[in-house]
Amino acid sequence: MHYSLAELARLTETQVVGDGDIVITELASLSHATASSLRFLSDSARREELVNPLIGAVVVHEQDADAISNGLISDDPYLTYAKLSRLFHEDSYPFGSSIHPSAYIDVSAVVAADVSVGPNAVIGPCVSIGAGSVIGPNVSIYSKVRIGLDALIGANVVIGFDGFGFARSSSGWVKIYQLGGVKIGNNVEIGAGCTIDRGALDDTVISDGVKLDDQVHIAHGCFIGERTALAGCVALAGSTRLGADVTVGGMTGFTGHLSVCDKVHIGANALVTKSINIAGTYLGGAGGVLKAREWRRNAVHFRQLDALAKRIRALEQRLKVK
Amino acid sequence: MHYSLAELARLTETQVVGDGDIVITELASLSHATASSLRFLSDSARREELVNPLIGAVVVHEQDADAISNGLISDDPYLTYAKLSRLFHEDSYPFGSSIHPSAYIDVSAVVAADVSVGPNAVIGPCVSIGAGSVIGPNVSIYSKVRIGLDALIGANVVIGFDGFGFARSSSGWVKIYQLGGVKIGNNVEIGAGCTIDRGALDDTVISDGVKLDDQVHIAHGCFIGERTALAGCVALAGSTRLGADVTVGGMTGFTGHLSVCDKVHIGANALVTKSINIAGTYLGGAGGVLKAREWRRNAVHFRQLDALAKRIRALEQRLKVK
Amino acid sequence: MHYSLAELARLTETQVVGDGDIVITELASLSHATASSLRFLSDSARREELVNPLIGAVVVHEQDADAISNGLISDDPYLTYAKLSRLFHEDSYPFGSSIHPSAYIDVSAVVAADVSVGPNAVIGPCVSIGAGSVIGPNVSIYSKVRIGLDALIGANVVIGFDGFGFARSSSGWVKIYQLGGVKIGNNVEIGAGCTIDRGALDDTVISDGVKLDDQVHIAHGCFIGERTALAGCVALAGSTRLGADVTVGGMTGFTGHLSVCDKVHIGANALVTKSINIAGTYLGGAGGVLKAREWRRNAVHFRQLDALAKRIRALEQRLKVK
Repeated sequence: MHYSLAELARLTETQVVGDGDIVITELASLSHATASSLRFLSDSARREELVNPLIGAVVVHEQDADAISNGLISDDPYLTYAKLSRLFHEDSYPFGSSIHPSAYIDVSAVVAADVSVGPNAVIGPCVSIGAGSVIGPNVSIYSKVRIGLDALIGANVVIGFDGFGFARSSSGWVKIYQLGGVKIGNNVEIGAGCTIDRGALDDTVISDGVKLDDQVHIAHGCFIGERTALAGCVALAGSTRLGADVTVGGMTGFTGHLSVCDKVHIGANALVTKSINIAGTYLGGAGGVLKAREWRRNAVHFRQLDALAKRIRALEQRLKVK
Repeated sequence: MHYSLAELARLTETQVVGDGDIVITELASLSHATASSLRFLSDSARREELVNPLIGAVVVHEQDADAISNGLISDDPYLTYAKLSRLFHEDSYPFGSSIHPSAYIDVSAVVAADVSVGPNAVIGPCVSIGAGSVIGPNVSIYSKVRIGLDALIGANVVIGFDGFGFARSSSGWVKIYQLGGVKIGNNVEIGAGCTIDRGALDDTVISDGVKLDDQVHIAHGCFIGERTALAGCVALAGSTRLGADVTVGGMTGFTGHLSVCDKVHIGANALVTKSINIAGTYLGGAGGVLKAREWRRNAVHFRQLDALAKRIRALEQRLKVK
Repeated sequence: MHYSLAELARLTETQVVGDGDIVITELASLSHATASSLRFLSDSARREELVNPLIGAVVVHEQDADAISNGLISDDPYLTYAKLSRLFHEDSYPFGSSIHPSAYIDVSAVVAADVSVGPNAVIGPCVSIGAGSVIGPNVSIYSKVRIGLDALIGANVVIGFDGFGFARSSSGWVKIYQLGGVKIGNNVEIGAGCTIDRGALDDTVISDGVKLDDQVHIAHGCFIGERTALAGCVALAGSTRLGADVTVGGMTGFTGHLSVCDKVHIGANALVTKSINIAGTYLGGAGGVLKAREWRRNAVHFRQLDALAKRIRALEQRLKVK
């Protein structure tokens, strides 16, 4: 796979700096320059990480063009890099472009003609999978799951297992059979090892353009709006509703039966316990670490904050501050 | 699948309100009324979510009977709903009621005659699985695992892999081979993607009636008491002992070598670091999120609580408050 | 499997106390004494857990030799136990010592002659697996993954799926195709259900002797140094670099693009948000639980710490403390 720099400029709608005839054979990270490598600098603040800037080619913002010999000028080097990555990508179908003979597909499932299903994947009754989708190896899809066009489902994902529902009775838990399904839109990517449960009554819904990193857990009856992206190990309890264009950092949880509006961005390792109705960036958790002794000295007060607050109030009253 | 309302009253030991002859074809959520749907209202506070209360039928407490035209009166509408869900459930065996030909069962495993084993599941040597159990697709069960009656094991669960045990030596980690097994009782449900490790010496034990949501991790040598229920992504470090009738919210962790008594309820996203010997409800973590700027302003003090406490003490001494 | 105590002393380079001729048939935990069991006491503080110390044999430190009748004296009973566990281990190959016929191995993969590949495992193109490795059932390995010697890969692990990379564009997310691979060293153990993503440009690297517990998530471009051990459910965001001989407690996360130096030990359930450049022990999170009412009384102040600090400052100014 090789392209001239000029050809890459044309394919990505960018402008050549320097010699458009040099041949590019690989994309590389900032520190790995070779004569035929193309790197990208999306943030001027990282210019010093660009080792040997005069070697090979670099995608840069206009203001960084002075730093390089050869390259491409882009309004958005990171987006240009995304476009380039597709050109240098070799194996969209590492397990073949059709249904692998070792996969199990229920006779009632409807799988579009060009879908790739990996080895040992399992697709249950009444499942439908739209054109252009790629289902990884060892994926398990239960019944009543509908997947749209151009989905990418990572290895060992489970879709459509029973939501976690039980009613208490005098003799223990009584199972609530889960009667809903899962509906997944178009252009959805689901990372390896995710679990997406079927709805109790209504379907669990993953809208168009949603991206889930690995090991995300989506409980029954959740709704995820368009283009929302959840980082690794995020977990949604039942009936969580996330709007469109939401992003969530890794390991963050939602306690369920709450809703988050469009364009909310939530940091890593938080627990969302209430609905969020105003777009913006939110953080939670007790992020960061300390040396163990220092952490312990502070942590003892986590559990005494109410007492500390009362002591402050007592002092204030004594001084008639308030 | 359809029943008269009167028939459903008989099957669930509830009382008909209105017309017992209307035909019910589906269970539905509060907002989805059709002429043949049956909904349930377990909490009077949610009456306003009951859209078109006069359409179809609704399972209600006696005090909500005035709100509906047709329905069932129950002392526990949620439990009645659980019983109804079974009647409207279609696919207890989405992958067939016997051992799927693509599953691998070791010749020394003992699997009861009516067990359903999903496609591409793997069952190792000396495993036993009791009658009525359903093993999902792509499940992996190592050796020395005993599963009781009527278990439901979700897709891609792993049971019996080595616990995480290593001793330090001058040349690195020395593996502690795990000699125990896993013993799972009757009526246990294990959600998709869970991992349950074998014991180091003694078995890891999951007692009768335990319910695990998806992606739960149970380390080696844990003991989980009867009817205990763990929500998604809970993780138990080695030798954690949970009593009976314990419930744990999603993403909560246990640091191991501790015990929790019966009837303890622990919230989401906490870290349990000490034994709990008194029944009741416990919470932990730094739950909730704030706007990013506000969170940052507060978070800086997480690491200065000890200094804040000392400043309060200094003020108190100055004022001779204590 | 049975050994005389004297034979075990020779094999583990320890000294016999009492009768070297007694026959040992099993390793056991402190509370399970039988005439032929061998237990170990690694910490004198746990002497009272040693039920019936005069029955069977016990591995002890020299200072605990007075407590037992028969046993082995070791400088490091825990390490001796690790060595013994190997001798009493029966099933290194529960699914056979070769490639199981139900596994799928791409024709271009290079798998050493003595590798064990479990049932329904999937090994993609251009993968290499070194001698002595054991690949569990239902494992999925994508292309461009290299695994060294003597690896143990738990069931349902996924290695080499796409890292989570997308660039924003006016029409939604644009996928960044992941061009790197995964390089795993020698003597690595990867727990059940782990997900290890391929690099965006450079390989994701797991060095020699690394041990990962179950459900660990390693994002694209991470580097993990030699002998580093990560407990269950740890998650590393992209481009995290961990040094050698690091240990991390369960459920701890790393926000990515940061580095941790050698010999750092981090507790459970923390979020590491900055690089750590000094060896030592670190803690984070808001560990521990409280009775629900007490936790709520305290938690309200988590979000008011800045206000509390200002009130203290006001008091100090009033009193001219500072």
